[in-house]
Amino acid sequence: MSQNSKIVRVGVIGFGTVGQGTVAALLKHKRDFQRRTGLRIVIKTIADRLVGSRDQARFRKIPRSIILTADPEVILRDREIDIVVELIGGQEPARALIVKALRNGQAVVTANKAVLASHWDEIRAAASEGWSVIKYEAAVGGVIPIINALEEGLVADQILSLQGVLNGTTNFILDQMEASGREFQDLLAEAQKKGYAEANPESDLSGEDVAFKILILTLILGRKIRFEEIDFTGVKPIKPIDFEYAHLLGYTIKLVAVSEVREGKLDVFVRPMLVPQSHPLAVVQGSLNKIVVRGKNSGETVYEGSGAGGIPTGIAVASNVITLARDLARRGWRRDIMPLLPQPSVWPLRKAKERIFEWYLRFIVRDRPGIIHDLSRPLKRLGISIKAIHQAEVPPELQNRLPFVVTIHSTAESQISQAVQALNRLRFMVEPPLLMPFLR
Amino acid sequence: MSQNSKIVRVGVIGFGTVGQGTVAALLKHKRDFQRRTGLRIVIKTIADRLVGSRDQARFRKIPRSIILTADPEVILRDREIDIVVELIGGQEPARALIVKALRNGQAVVTANKAVLASHWDEIRAAASEGWSVIKYEAAVGGVIPIINALEEGLVADQILSLQGVLNGTTNFILDQMEASGREFQDLLAEAQKKGYAEANPESDLSGEDVAFKILILTLILGRKIRFEEIDFTGVKPIKPIDFEYAHLLGYTIKLVAVSEVREGKLDVFVRPMLVPQSHPLAVVQGSLNKIVVRGKNSGETVYEGSGAGGIPTGIAVASNVITLARDLARRGWRRDIMPLLPQPSVWPLRKAKERIFEWYLRFIVRDRPGIIHDLSRPLKRLGISIKAIHQAEVPPELQNRLPFVVTIHSTAESQISQAVQALNRLRFMVEPPLLMPFLR
Repeated sequence: MSQNSKIVRVGVIGFGTVGQGTVAALLKHKRDFQRRTGLRIVIKTIADRLVGSRDQARFRKIPRSIILTADPEVILRDREIDIVVELIGGQEPARALIVKALRNGQAVVTANKAVLASHWDEIRAAASEGWSVIKYEAAVGGVIPIINALEEGLVADQILSLQGVLNGTTNFILDQMEASGREFQDLLAEAQKKGYAEANPESDLSGEDVAFKILILTLILGRKIRFEEIDFTGVKPIKPIDFEYAHLLGYTIKLVAVSEVREGKLDVFVRPMLVPQSHPLAVVQGSLNKIVVRGKNSGETVYEGSGAGGIPTGIAVASNVITLARDLARRGWRRDIMPLLPQPSVWPLRKAKERIFEWYLRFIVRDRPGIIHDLSRPLKRLGISIKAIHQAEVPPELQNRLPFVVTIHSTAESQISQAVQALNRLRFMVEPPLLMPFLR
Repeated sequence: MSQNSKIVRVGVIGFGTVGQGTVAALLKHKRDFQRRTGLRIVIKTIADRLVGSRDQARFRKIPRSIILTADPEVILRDREIDIVVELIGGQEPARALIVKALRNGQAVVTANKAVLASHWDEIRAAASEGWSVIKYEAAVGGVIPIINALEEGLVADQILSLQGVLNGTTNFILDQMEASGREFQDLLAEAQKKGYAEANPESDLSGEDVAFKILILTLILGRKIRFEEIDFTGVKPIKPIDFEYAHLLGYTIKLVAVSEVREGKLDVFVRPMLVPQSHPLAVVQGSLNKIVVRGKNSGETVYEGSGAGGIPTGIAVASNVITLARDLARRGWRRDIMPLLPQPSVWPLRKAKERIFEWYLRFIVRDRPGIIHDLSRPLKRLGISIKAIHQAEVPPELQNRLPFVVTIHSTAESQISQAVQALNRLRFMVEPPLLMPFLR
């Protein structure tokens, strides 16, 4: 059989934005793939729950040669289909479909961060059982080939830390808040209207989405941690005034994911942080994503690109499909594609009480004499050292909602959290204090 | 045979800075590789012309189990050696060694941009003949996995353009000139003293080194072009005053490599350019490298990291070795590793006369009345439209070396070059005018 006649057949489950982007990318560059790789990638079947429903608009542009079905099992049962692309998202039935396909010996490409983060071991075991393989470049950082970089480009190095801005929705909101001074709810509504935020943005806003992503990057490095062990905090309490103070201090604010090994301990967390203006993460515009990788010998490498959107994300999915197709077509023997998986390494996890930062503490108070004295009492009692106190000038009508900021020298998280609880009980406190660490 | 007993044997030719970085990376993480991949990577032989000479210091730390030789043929003749790492650089004998190893069926890893850029077709043919494979991540952008990104991560997209800062030495000099206002020769001497610039920096300074690199990235995309067809210009004529004018205009100056397909034509060139302060290439510090990739659907992705240095570059080489070793160990049948090469696509090349930019023209003149009138005559005659004239205030003692700058509306390169020739003949011209395009 000549190389030119090789065909790899693909089934796509889920025809939402990313599904449409993926199919468009595969169809558009079909001839180019064939010219470049000498093989044909054929989309045989698309399964989507809307097939057969009244909402048929999205299916109109699909070539007639592709089978449409509402039943994903049609793809899993089809022994001709080599690669299953799972793009329905969410936990179930996505998890069950991925595991079944892998056990079948079908290769899987997915963008599903939730399933990967929650069922990593089960999925890797299913791939082992079926002598198959799973690729998921689009699950983290959209079109940025960060997974490829960690799995191959930097594989010879020991990675010391990852720092990332990994959620386009929250970055868009923070970016706009910084530029325009508009309030959170207002910007969220706009983002939803423009399609940058989902109808239910809870996973984005709470930091959960980013926690899924940083967990996956950590697991790729062979470092064992469960989703439940990741502390994550979202962006809702951030106000335009926080950007004013941040700028005053030479910083900006980003929702940052960190995964690092330091002093023999693994630490993975997600939270809004003060980022120095000179740090690569300080400049991430709109809905872009950016990742800073620090390697023991490779030093700092930085990756930036579209973190969301059906078309760029579709490129990441389609690139995985093509690379897999190329690998499959090279080999007659299916067992051959089993990857040599990294063995997990177990590190003790850093506990919150050992997590030491400099801190930003923003209060909204009813102004009256002696506030600073009262604030400093619980801090002193806990042995916490104030670095500076900043207070912007405000018009008299704000005297009942007076914002000001205290910065704190290096202190353990557990200790500062205790102080914040005490401070929150003070009578002049209008709303709970906002606590943010400074990124190193 | 259990997976755990698999051994891949490596021979390293050339034990300079990168060779030492590569061997250190492979030795350091030997146990980690084994744990992660279940296979052993054994450095069997190192060949270096200094073996047996009086300068033995560099060989002292090498484990005794590794064979040392001055003769690279020892590695090529050894049928046990699966992967040959070529790190001697330069054209010959590197080309001959690479071609021979590939024809032997040995996989090759190299950082040799000169050989790849000059003998691409011969090398790919040798790999085909020997059913072998060559990897060269370290040849472009040091440790940045840009080749991996283009070959795999973004393979589903059509790449519209690459723009890169790809030479650490010149970027260090320009960066320092911008920060300190010191002159070129002075900074070059410092860079050489600090080891950032080679004893013979001609290839770096002339743009040749960058031309090799952008050529390789272009060839990876399957676009046919020969080294002789690439226009490249170096950084020597740039003066501190150019940064002053650039800043005044909202720009900085970088040695930029461009490879783009636009209006059906391929254009690849290297030259110092005025880069807008808001462009990702405006901020590339010291000896870092940065590449901006624009894809039709993936949008802009940006990659940054150490572009030079034995240790980071050694990580890129060692990562190639490990990925190859993993691929080799997976497959019994050697023929299997032949990659499905991209077929070259032939684009007409853009000619200089069709290359349209806005231009920066800096003159050093002996001041006297009527200069602007005399300068504008040849421009007017050629139909070239002046955008603005900028003249910094200078002390009276500089009246005989008065710098000033003319910016020019969009004009073809051939046309502006003709004008510069005419201007250079004017009697008050103290040195040849400096012509630089504005990066879009």
